[in-house]
Amino acid sequence: MKVVFVAPSTALRQAMSASDTRHDLERGSALTPRFDASGLIAAVATDATTGEVLMLAWMNAEALAKTLETGQAHYFSRSRQALWKKGETSGQIQTVTEIRTDCDQDALWLKVKVGGDGGACHVGFRSCFYRVIVDGKLVEQP
Amino acid sequence: MKVVFVAPSTALRQAMSASDTRHDLERGSALTPRFDASGLIAAVATDATTGEVLMLAWMNAEALAKTLETGQAHYFSRSRQALWKKGETSGQIQTVTEIRTDCDQDALWLKVKVGGDGGACHVGFRSCFYRVIVDGKLVEQP
Repeated sequence: MKVVFVAPSTALRQAMSASDTRHDLERGSALTPRFDASGLIAAVATDATTGEVLMLAWMNAEALAKTLETGQAHYFSRSRQALWKKGETSGQIQTVTEIRTDCDQDALWLKVKVGGDGGACHVGFRSCFYRVIVDGKLVEQP
Repeated sequence: MKVVFVAPSTALRQAMSASDTRHDLERGSALTPRFDASGLIAAVATDATTGEVLMLAWMNAEALAKTLETGQAHYFSRSRQALWKKGETSGQIQTVTEIRTDCDQDALWLKVKVGGDGGACHVGFRSCFYRVIVDGKLVEQP
């Protein structure tokens, strides 16, 4: 039997490549965060003990690197356009017990133990999500 | 005593106005979501029973309105640039038990009961956050 090697078409090669990329992204072991056009990725912080969602903030590559390096949560302040070590002035340092990423690596989930007064919100509540939407209105239910 | 009315300076009026706006945003009862430049707001969905973070997705004004109206989570797919009723094809409908917003109203937290097989992730895991970052590598720990 004569074996003829047929080179895959460009379209097939592109499809195979996209499939490899997607598989790596979703099931691979390489951390390849997909930062947005502003260089940021969304990060959800939950209380490591209670599971409560404390805040949603943003990280750039430097903030993520500092967080992984120090074990304390660093974010990027969009309003101040600067790296921000959470708790540096308030004492509400977030010690990270676990960081997860999601299927398409465009979000992070940090489980944290909170220092200082145990809160995360500058308004004074423990969680930034202290208001429930009830009939289209906001009701404080910390 | 002669009372002289002194009109506040422009700077003071601006500061007062900003302060009012900030107070309304943080402590008011009006839902005024701060959508980003693309018209989107980040939405975290957690399992109403276990508290586990299931996914982080995006809503535009229409998706939020549909979610509030129907009690079932609707998102906006950035890849498909279209409204997306979660679970419409997979059966993983998310029935919302509570929606919260954060201090500056640029994020939402949905507590949901998941239909179908109980999962939220297209890869097949219950939560999209099935990988932990360990020594800079991703390790699957659903």
